[in-house]
Amino acid sequence: MDTSQAIPNLHAVILAGGSGARFWPLSRELSPKQMLDIFGGVSLISRAVHRIAPLLEPGNLHVLTNERLLDELRNHLAAQEDIDTGTIDFLAEPTARNTAPAIALAAAYLLQQDPEAMMIVLPSDHLLEDGPVWESAVRLSCDAAEGGALVTIGLTPTHAETGYGYIRAGRPMPGLAEGELRVCGADRFVEKPDAETARRYLEGGDYLWNSGMLVACAASVLSQLRSVGRRKATPDSSHGEIIARVAEELAAMTPAEWLARDARDRYTSLPSVPFDKAVLEVSERVAVLPVSLSWSDVGSLLSLEKLAEADDRGNVLVGNILDVDSHGVIGYSADRLVATLGLDDLIIVDTTDATLVAAKDRTQDVRLVVEALRAAGAPEVVSSRSSLRPWGSWTLLMKADRFQIKSIEVLPGKRLSLQSHEKRSEHWVVVDGEAVVERDGETATLAANESAFIPPGTRHRLGNAGDTTLQVIEVAVGDYLEEDDIVRFEDDWGREGGTE
Amino acid sequence: MDTSQAIPNLHAVILAGGSGARFWPLSRELSPKQMLDIFGGVSLISRAVHRIAPLLEPGNLHVLTNERLLDELRNHLAAQEDIDTGTIDFLAEPTARNTAPAIALAAAYLLQQDPEAMMIVLPSDHLLEDGPVWESAVRLSCDAAEGGALVTIGLTPTHAETGYGYIRAGRPMPGLAEGELRVCGADRFVEKPDAETARRYLEGGDYLWNSGMLVACAASVLSQLRSVGRRKATPDSSHGEIIARVAEELAAMTPAEWLARDARDRYTSLPSVPFDKAVLEVSERVAVLPVSLSWSDVGSLLSLEKLAEADDRGNVLVGNILDVDSHGVIGYSADRLVATLGLDDLIIVDTTDATLVAAKDRTQDVRLVVEALRAAGAPEVVSSRSSLRPWGSWTLLMKADRFQIKSIEVLPGKRLSLQSHEKRSEHWVVVDGEAVVERDGETATLAANESAFIPPGTRHRLGNAGDTTLQVIEVAVGDYLEEDDIVRFEDDWGREGGTE
Repeated sequence: MDTSQAIPNLHAVILAGGSGARFWPLSRELSPKQMLDIFGGVSLISRAVHRIAPLLEPGNLHVLTNERLLDELRNHLAAQEDIDTGTIDFLAEPTARNTAPAIALAAAYLLQQDPEAMMIVLPSDHLLEDGPVWESAVRLSCDAAEGGALVTIGLTPTHAETGYGYIRAGRPMPGLAEGELRVCGADRFVEKPDAETARRYLEGGDYLWNSGMLVACAASVLSQLRSVGRRKATPDSSHGEIIARVAEELAAMTPAEWLARDARDRYTSLPSVPFDKAVLEVSERVAVLPVSLSWSDVGSLLSLEKLAEADDRGNVLVGNILDVDSHGVIGYSADRLVATLGLDDLIIVDTTDATLVAAKDRTQDVRLVVEALRAAGAPEVVSSRSSLRPWGSWTLLMKADRFQIKSIEVLPGKRLSLQSHEKRSEHWVVVDGEAVVERDGETATLAANESAFIPPGTRHRLGNAGDTTLQVIEVAVGDYLEEDDIVRFEDDWGREGGTE
Repeated sequence: MDTSQAIPNLHAVILAGGSGARFWPLSRELSPKQMLDIFGGVSLISRAVHRIAPLLEPGNLHVLTNERLLDELRNHLAAQEDIDTGTIDFLAEPTARNTAPAIALAAAYLLQQDPEAMMIVLPSDHLLEDGPVWESAVRLSCDAAEGGALVTIGLTPTHAETGYGYIRAGRPMPGLAEGELRVCGADRFVEKPDAETARRYLEGGDYLWNSGMLVACAASVLSQLRSVGRRKATPDSSHGEIIARVAEELAAMTPAEWLARDARDRYTSLPSVPFDKAVLEVSERVAVLPVSLSWSDVGSLLSLEKLAEADDRGNVLVGNILDVDSHGVIGYSADRLVATLGLDDLIIVDTTDATLVAAKDRTQDVRLVVEALRAAGAPEVVSSRSSLRPWGSWTLLMKADRFQIKSIEVLPGKRLSLQSHEKRSEHWVVVDGEAVVERDGETATLAANESAFIPPGTRHRLGNAGDTTLQVIEVAVGDYLEEDDIVRFEDDWGREGGTE
């Protein structure tokens, strides 16, 4: 990674704890929206990493998520080309408490490492155009942050969107300009406006979309939390002092200790408040940098509309979908055949194991579906049938009481961990590529159409020695087939717990 | 089978050529509506066989279908308990020409075997209550048929249905009564009426639903075709003579010869006319026997409504479906999870490989979807992922360019044919039950968690020696994986062509 462009003292904090329930069934608890790669083939969080990494010194990229997603996110990013997860600092919040506690914790944590630390807080699940304007905007924001400002990044609206929050830009701040970019005072924060108001904002020209991106010195974040807390201007801002104090208490511990009972209880006791409400709406040190970049918060399944051109009847159909006489339908099928007949204004999302059919004006309520499924214990809420791994990926093809079938794809030169299972046997059939199979110390090379048997207790390892992707069909047989029946003896990524 | 109740000279002709396109994706070209078993767990054609077989002497049950469905239907019925396909006469029409040519061909064919033959023509894809009333109705119809009548069976309407045809019953025919049953003259045939007319019919009490069931002497069928043809009362009836003549020409050949070019061309030249229009609406020998039996022609996907009680919001949801805030939705899911949100008056049908979402008032147009899919070459129109076989069933789990995975279930005591493949290898993993595997003359018994490899060219056979169902996962690997790569050396059902 070329770091000649790095901004000294700048740390990026990518917020990656979101569950993305509104994107079900494309997103799942263990593969939330930030891991979706349908927008251009690269996941949203990978894009976030690629966007900021060139501006950082090594070691200054932090991903803040939760305990449950820690392994999944690490595996996901490890599977991306050009991302070296060894240089990323993965952190788990003790529990989800919205962005004020999260940003405070990150700020206190960074201050422990570097009293001069500056931070850029980035959502992990948005779409944003990068390039020279983006880089200039980050650099200019850092200049303003060094002067003590909390700099929000505001996007010039391109339409009268009612689903976003807005920031009104005030007067340009002296000396903070580069090319066409000007850092301005932030006069006002507005939540999602109605259509008429949004139209006025668009015409007026001084309102910007609130992107959720923030640049500030870590010390300013904590001092502003404290000072607005002391003023108690609004109920939400009155919690600033306690949030800052608990953040500093945790920062004195190691991130592993954040997950111990006491720290977790402390953090859980904090109010669940957005940083916008706790600080930005009331602090006088807030600035906004208006930029004209293509941006979307990918907030609901309606965003799928961006994936293709509408047909003559206003349908946007992506994937294996055949329509007769429908109007205004958004359809997305990852693989299976979906046929539609005489429908109006629906959204249909089809995945291997679950299908959602919803009225288009109810997409914000997909979370109700997810809640109901969770209450019913539906496994389709937790995970999909496929998982990315640092060595490749696997897909569950069939699950029965006493056996299950997976397709396992191993990237060239990669191998799974050396492992054994107590309760299941595995039958492997190589269907593409060349496998290296290790069993109790003995190694064999298997071509396509060859097979291997792994009895319980055998120390075994599957690797790809070829230069094309290896595909193996695995039939596992046993009374207990869960992923946690695994003993790892060695792993190329140092993984211990979790699943293979 | 107990045939002590058999009616002398009675032959049943089950019409089983229907493609059932309106039931897609539950029905497919190779598993049409008559093979659907969702209504009570037994297929519609199995019910038809069970309903009439006790009233027939051995050898008098004929299934008339088309060439393409012949093997599928035989396999399907062979897989049913209590049906001995060895006693069923499977016939293939040269081509589909509607019911007038089909019934004429069956009549001429039966007359060749038995100049006294009486026939009962039965649809294969309807739901009908059986029991003592049904049996009495058939016997009484036969009495009337012996006197020369063409007896239709009319169902007493239970609601003002606009989707059925109606028959108006006239005066009771003297001497033709049993219990409450009376054979009457048939005064009038009416096609699907409007709602107001249907309501009047229901109130009037003399209109009956036209079930499509007919009882007549084979000789009467042909003589009536000829005599109405001579009168040329309507355009449709004017074809009677040519239909009767071609039917007799074909009946002079063997059923195998019907499929040869000349016979097929002769038959294809016939007009595609329903028997109702060609004969029943114009003949004076037509009677109707009104019966009060529960009946449905299962004519469209709306019939799925009968599968369960509606919920508070009028939704009928069968299978793995979770709904939030929908109204009037009919949902059927065979297996996968379907979630619905805020929908009105839709029908959703989900199967392993295809999903249909349609406006409820468009279910008659599902055939448009099927036509469009056929034009696009979609394999989901032709067959589903599962097939019943005389020895059990198989399900395709995954299909790729150079390999495919099937789950194969073999019934206790059954075995597949002794066969070999030229172009593919097969890897078998037994996951349940006990397999007998024969390879080039050597036989081995495999328990669950054991596997076998079948290289190309190996004469092999898979059987179930245990008393529980055997389940085997098969991974087939090769450049060519189609079902026609099979050489059969021996088969317990004498099968030669087609697929295993």
